[in-house]
Amino acid sequence: MPNPKRSSADNCDEWVRRCKAGDRRAVARLVTFLESPDRKTSREASRSASALPPPKQVIGITGPPGAGKSTLLDYLISLFRQEGRTVGVIAVDPSSPFTGGALLGDRIRMGTHRTDTGVFIRSMGNRGALGGLAAAASSALRVLGGAGFEVVLLETVGAGQSASEIINLADTVCVIQVPGLGDDIQLMKMGVLETADVFVVNKADRPDAKHLFVQIQDAVRDAPGETCRVMRQLGKAFASSFTGPRWTPEVVLVSALQQTGGPDLLNAFRKHRAYLDAPEISAALRSNRLAREIHHQTCRRLKEDLDIRLAPGGDLQDVVDTCARGERDLAWAVEEAIRRSTTA
Amino acid sequence: MPNPKRSSADNCDEWVRRCKAGDRRAVARLVTFLESPDRKTSREASRSASALPPPKQVIGITGPPGAGKSTLLDYLISLFRQEGRTVGVIAVDPSSPFTGGALLGDRIRMGTHRTDTGVFIRSMGNRGALGGLAAAASSALRVLGGAGFEVVLLETVGAGQSASEIINLADTVCVIQVPGLGDDIQLMKMGVLETADVFVVNKADRPDAKHLFVQIQDAVRDAPGETCRVMRQLGKAFASSFTGPRWTPEVVLVSALQQTGGPDLLNAFRKHRAYLDAPEISAALRSNRLAREIHHQTCRRLKEDLDIRLAPGGDLQDVVDTCARGERDLAWAVEEAIRRSTTA
Repeated sequence: MPNPKRSSADNCDEWVRRCKAGDRRAVARLVTFLESPDRKTSREASRSASALPPPKQVIGITGPPGAGKSTLLDYLISLFRQEGRTVGVIAVDPSSPFTGGALLGDRIRMGTHRTDTGVFIRSMGNRGALGGLAAAASSALRVLGGAGFEVVLLETVGAGQSASEIINLADTVCVIQVPGLGDDIQLMKMGVLETADVFVVNKADRPDAKHLFVQIQDAVRDAPGETCRVMRQLGKAFASSFTGPRWTPEVVLVSALQQTGGPDLLNAFRKHRAYLDAPEISAALRSNRLAREIHHQTCRRLKEDLDIRLAPGGDLQDVVDTCARGERDLAWAVEEAIRRSTTA
Repeated sequence: MPNPKRSSADNCDEWVRRCKAGDRRAVARLVTFLESPDRKTSREASRSASALPPPKQVIGITGPPGAGKSTLLDYLISLFRQEGRTVGVIAVDPSSPFTGGALLGDRIRMGTHRTDTGVFIRSMGNRGALGGLAAAASSALRVLGGAGFEVVLLETVGAGQSASEIINLADTVCVIQVPGLGDDIQLMKMGVLETADVFVVNKADRPDAKHLFVQIQDAVRDAPGETCRVMRQLGKAFASSFTGPRWTPEVVLVSALQQTGGPDLLNAFRKHRAYLDAPEISAALRSNRLAREIHHQTCRRLKEDLDIRLAPGGDLQDVVDTCARGERDLAWAVEEAIRRSTTA
């Protein structure tokens, strides 16, 4: 029996066992392993975590800086705790390879829930998960699922491809908007409508909040059904054969600071959950999520292998050299790298 | 002989021939193909472009919003044109899958150089190059190199991993800073020092510009040699065996708007170019760049293949199904996907 106190990848399965028994320290340890810059450790942690079930409900929270994401997270945790549900939070910051998620994490950990054992809060950054943050985040969700957290809140910042891959790990995506950022209509035009299942208009106490609320409601009503996020996710073939109704994003007026609007928001989440639980969608979504998880994990593995093989001394060094001497061109090198990857 | 007017991937080689002959329309067409959401088109364009040489000098321009990147680009184009050099600009916006680089491009195209045939300006976004923007951008650089542009300016926004992969396609990275954003010291702490070969303190006319200039100079002087970007890029093994001097980032005070400081900036670029041209660094860098290009292109291909194979009806559908039925777990599915990728 390995000593689980050793911070090594060799005993990830033991940590997984402890995690399933509800050991919070094991949860924290496994997420740390997933983020490890040491390939062997992160790979082993990811393999162990993949035996765990994803959480029953993952709610993605995103929005522009200044929208009050932290305050809303805080409020949401309180609301779910009042319902007696345990809550995990994964806050992911893909925007900087330098800071990782440290700033985000510090900010959140200062909240009021740090002494509540029904709450687990963790931030993740890009430190050890370069190119594979979505893979690491999806494994972390399984760790929280395995530990029995009933609701997991997945916060991300940014609007890039990495952020979009991460937020799409959630069942329900909640986009926060606030009055006064000045680019509300612009954001609508830019496709935000397609990215949310639920809109929160935060800072409801502000005089122009109601106006923004109405604007978003109008935009949602005017939008054609194909903006439905889950249909986009499930692809054109599914969407064109699906005869059920399209989800229309809910718009909810909230003041996270003054703790108003919460019940409406939980209600919106429940409605969306019920929509996803319709058998036809539910089955397709389950396969779609698995396919995406397999994609993330497989890509990360292939990318890591290429890192090693293309580094000086790696088995593709001669391909690089041949190309550097100008004897063959880049197209040949790519074909050669693929040929050797697929016959290894 | 294919008709090159057809917007198809079948005649990329013909467009490449025209591109080498200096046909600007062929340059534009090839970049459009590289960005195409149609896999066959982008793949064929990428294959054709890989026969073209990368540009002699690629200067990366990055910095926070509001730092005056567009104005500096405009100024730099004028400076290089006064020297009689042709200039290509690739502006890449990895931050949004929705807008692509459209906003950026519109902004730049409104500049004063649009009638100058010695200047080619193009923006690229994430539209058709999901997950492969660095691959598409590196191919686009070769297209400009093949068309004979003597200097290529590569502008990016954002600080994420995708932005960082793109900016690192440049020979020289120029980071713009401006007084008054309030987080200057913070940025320094967050590792910006390691990402620049040349710092531009823009808006030199502002009263606090000189102070920021001195702050960055002090930070650069206090920083140990290992912040040298090219050494980080070439890896620890090279850096520890390399006995030559480390590059110390140049700091230049510029007002892009009032067109002052330009000659100092060009001088800083020349000094860095000369540093990279030292034989030992030059040879290592050539291999390193090729390895990264092979990595980007190969990853993109493997990722695209996985997209197809994991989609409904793809040859990994049975793996997803087995997993969805709960007969095997995710770890098995990932191993199976890798096994089949490597024995296809």
